Amino acid sequence: MNLAVIGTSKIAQKLTSTFLTFPDMQVNAVYSRTKEKGKEFASVFSCTKVYTDLEDMVNDKEIDLVYIASPNALHVAQSKICLQHGKHVFCEKPIAFSRDELDSLIALAKQNHCFFQEAMTVTYMPNFSILKQAIQDKHPHLLTCDLSQYSIQYDALKQGEISNVFAKQMKGGALYDLGVYCLHFVYGILGYPKAMTKYDVRYTNGIDTSGVIVMQYEQCNAIISYGKDSKGSAHTRIQCEEGYYDMEGACSRLRTIVFHDEQGTHALGTETKENHHWYEVDAFLKMIQKNNHAFQQQQWEQSLAVCQLLEELQEKGDKTV
Amino acid sequence: MNLAVIGTSKIAQKLTSTFLTFPDMQVNAVYSRTKEKGKEFASVFSCTKVYTDLEDMVNDKEIDLVYIASPNALHVAQSKICLQHGKHVFCEKPIAFSRDELDSLIALAKQNHCFFQEAMTVTYMPNFSILKQAIQDKHPHLLTCDLSQYSIQYDALKQGEISNVFAKQMKGGALYDLGVYCLHFVYGILGYPKAMTKYDVRYTNGIDTSGVIVMQYEQCNAIISYGKDSKGSAHTRIQCEEGYYDMEGACSRLRTIVFHDEQGTHALGTETKENHHWYEVDAFLKMIQKNNHAFQQQQWEQSLAVCQLLEELQEKGDKTV
Repeated sequence: MNLAVIGTSKIAQKLTSTFLTFPDMQVNAVYSRTKEKGKEFASVFSCTKVYTDLEDMVNDKEIDLVYIASPNALHVAQSKICLQHGKHVFCEKPIAFSRDELDSLIALAKQNHCFFQEAMTVTYMPNFSILKQAIQDKHPHLLTCDLSQYSIQYDALKQGEISNVFAKQMKGGALYDLGVYCLHFVYGILGYPKAMTKYDVRYTNGIDTSGVIVMQYEQCNAIISYGKDSKGSAHTRIQCEEGYYDMEGACSRLRTIVFHDEQGTHALGTETKENHHWYEVDAFLKMIQKNNHAFQQQQWEQSLAVCQLLEELQEKGDKTV
Repeated sequence: MNLAVIGTSKIAQKLTSTFLTFPDMQVNAVYSRTKEKGKEFASVFSCTKVYTDLEDMVNDKEIDLVYIASPNALHVAQSKICLQHGKHVFCEKPIAFSRDELDSLIALAKQNHCFFQEAMTVTYMPNFSILKQAIQDKHPHLLTCDLSQYSIQYDALKQGEISNVFAKQMKGGALYDLGVYCLHFVYGILGYPKAMTKYDVRYTNGIDTSGVIVMQYEQCNAIISYGKDSKGSAHTRIQCEEGYYDMEGACSRLRTIVFHDEQGTHALGTETKENHHWYEVDAFLKMIQKNNHAFQQQQWEQSLAVCQLLEELQEKGDKTV
């Protein structure tokens, strides 16, 4: 299978090399607005084609699938053109910013017989299913999911340099960069909330550098916190009447699950690969190979729900002072 | 000095024995609605007088100070009658439920030349001042303060037995029992918030068995969570641009402070007494001995602010679904 990559960032490189660990996978082309960056990327991954015009790239018949790792604001338009030209698309999160946006893209994918997946680690991690199964018979009353990761770009921001990740017009900000993982996690575990509220910390350019979202469920509060502006140590906890589950580190990696109850401490998780991106790529490629539309539908439902959450938060969930 | 105690609960016993570790301190009397409970308490603390009529007790000229450890709903009325009769009062938290209520009690205390302190561990812990000093030059963007303590009374509640701590008419519930510590902590560190919202988890009798409060500050969110309905492990964290402070265990005890930054891990806290109640009692007795009105005023300002927070949360901060 021939992969084309849109974008040349660190995450683009990381995922591209993950794709290459699978059999019969070649990097066929790269697209970048900057020829030089494209060439550099191409030399690392031994591909010869560097596109600076996306129209040209999507008309390249050799390309089977496209991985989109561009700034957030470009995801929807680029997914659209790729799907219109019959390419399978693996798009970085957030896949879209409203339910309608994603619905239109899904319609296009169906029409053009393409598979179309959000690059979202959370729900593909083996420990996610284990956790979901484990809490089935528990009574949770509090879920806290923190994904704080200080960004060196924040240092730059304070010096007046606005990188894509903190640029409003690129749909940067902590929610779309980090919070979206937490939304996938909480929705995946507890479903759609009855209500929710978002509290941003915003920089002078208006971008959210950190934030808190409270999601309200019947008999349970879920608190999401995420940020690029403070040092911290990501962790997730689910507190139930029966005991509590601790997941150290980012919910996007879900390396370990420890359950604490009156009997003591129980390790529940299974061993996971060092490269946590392996699972989402594996799911995508298997889905294509097996022509698994049922699995695709299930993924879409998860992504549609999270897009709806993002949309609701934009429209009326904001209580930032 | 002659101490009288209102209430005979476990916390009443704990604080009474703490008072007795100070020189020249005797338990002179106990008040309980139930004669038998009063007698039992009296026998433990070697006092002879057991009152079942509060009017009688406050007219007892031998009594210098009263420790009030009754159900929350009785705090204000009992403080009032004690102060009116010229007794110094050490009252369990919450000392009152609105700013006006506490203001009236303070007026009474002044009029009758009494000292009047809320039994609130947080701000008297030696580590509290250390922490407050340490974050002076930092830039916090997220504070999380969790005080989850599963209660065996919650098991009883599920069996249909409503104890005082879960009784609406006794002003029970998780906020007044546990959340109030977190409010004192956050107000003590960050001051009065620009806005705040409360999210309750309520039992069928309407009582809050757990809750979340988001307090919004300029460039910082503070999240308080507290609960008696789920297992957990209390902890507090303050995330700053420069690093983060971890305080394991309840903020009411503040045993340790660890600061994490790029240089590593730094223990900041000082050793604290095993009995964390010692500090508040020490502060109260020293204040009386030294006739320290400046210190009293400072305490009142802290308690008034927290009463105002409680009042605001009752009136308009509630977003429970």
